[in-house]
Amino acid sequence: MSDILERLADVLAERRYAAADSSYVAALHHKGLNKILEKVGEEATETILAAKDAASGVDSDRQAVVAETADLWFHSLVMLSHLDIEHQAVLDELARRFGTSGLDEKAARTPSP
Amino acid sequence: MSDILERLADVLAERRYAAADSSYVAALHHKGLNKILEKVGEEATETILAAKDAASGVDSDRQAVVAETADLWFHSLVMLSHLDIEHQAVLDELARRFGTSGLDEKAARTPSP
Amino acid sequence: MSDILERLADVLAERRYAAADSSYVAALHHKGLNKILEKVGEEATETILAAKDAASGVDSDRQAVVAETADLWFHSLVMLSHLDIEHQAVLDELARRFGTSGLDEKAARTPSP
Amino acid sequence: MSDILERLADVLAERRYAAADSSYVAALHHKGLNKILEKVGEEATETILAAKDAASGVDSDRQAVVAETADLWFHSLVMLSHLDIEHQAVLDELARRFGTSGLDEKAARTPSP
Repeated sequence: MSDILERLADVLAERRYAAADSSYVAALHHKGLNKILEKVGEEATETILAAKDAASGVDSDRQAVVAETADLWFHSLVMLSHLDIEHQAVLDELARRFGTSGLDEKAARTPSP
Repeated sequence: MSDILERLADVLAERRYAAADSSYVAALHHKGLNKILEKVGEEATETILAAKDAASGVDSDRQAVVAETADLWFHSLVMLSHLDIEHQAVLDELARRFGTSGLDEKAARTPSP
Repeated sequence: MSDILERLADVLAERRYAAADSSYVAALHHKGLNKILEKVGEEATETILAAKDAASGVDSDRQAVVAETADLWFHSLVMLSHLDIEHQAVLDELARRFGTSGLDEKAARTPSP
Repeated sequence: MSDILERLADVLAERRYAAADSSYVAALHHKGLNKILEKVGEEATETILAAKDAASGVDSDRQAVVAETADLWFHSLVMLSHLDIEHQAVLDELARRFGTSGLDEKAARTPSP
């Protein structure tokens, strides 16, 4: 089911070199890394705002959290693609930290500073 | 392969109500939504910084991009769990935008303001 | 000289209730707090990117740091105005932490969590 | 009154080359630009969260907005100092946009993309 990410990564790879005026993704790559990272920062902020609103219990805000988180993951996939990093490396890193049993998170996790 | 996300979401759900001193995830939930969202913002910034460094071509910085993106996705999964939103809803939203054919991104995507 | 901030705060207060189509500031207030906070987040990201580029020594990037930091301070002043908080309270807080002698930063500063 | 910024900038300049273990500011410079920019991003997120909480009307949250905005301005001053950019250049940029009369904001402001 979450081959969705894999399919999406394939589409992103394919669009990277499409004509900039035919695809949002191609246009982002064309504008360059800073523009892509601005979008990552922007979507992170919008996710945070949607989450605060959802916490006050309005249902439409919960849908906004879903949409903004999708935007955040989407633009981070574009970033990985721009840097020629496989999204699978990120999933592997998550798997590594959580182990196959999923029981050893705490030991494996390197806290970020 | 990317059932990794599904397995991770299961682990997160299970840890949510663990003792706060036995699990990083339980401790985050215990500290509350603001603390979780601070981490989302923090990891977004660290991802952006790692991506800038990676763009200058140092290989260890590419590994940092992987690690920071994993941190960003991880903490956004904790956020979804805290708000009782299924991560599958985010994947479905990504699938919806990209269609099964993966060809209709541009039409389906609602640009964020 | 840095009465610039004071003059700016006055202008912002005055513009808050101007017609939304006559002033960028009035339009921001009209769109509401989330829009203002999105701008704060966006400008923080753009400041960070400009700073990374400036660190590699290009002079035009140094000018970009100045422009983006101005945008960041500007939108945080709009945020204060929207919440009816005097910008002077922020300056007082900075003065309090640094003391009149400017020598006691370390003791006075409450580290943010 | 807002010579507070000027005094603060002087103190920051002086601390830059202090021993790293004697001053929070010196320690930040020692850790380098990325660490300083992480703090800028972190404080932007905390400012946004405090503003959302303040909007729901709790008085202690208004004090948190003041404290977090102070942290945000403080760390952006450290960033300027690290890049050898005068904070006055940022104030001049704000003055330039707003004119001496403070009436021409709209024309002068270059909207950020």
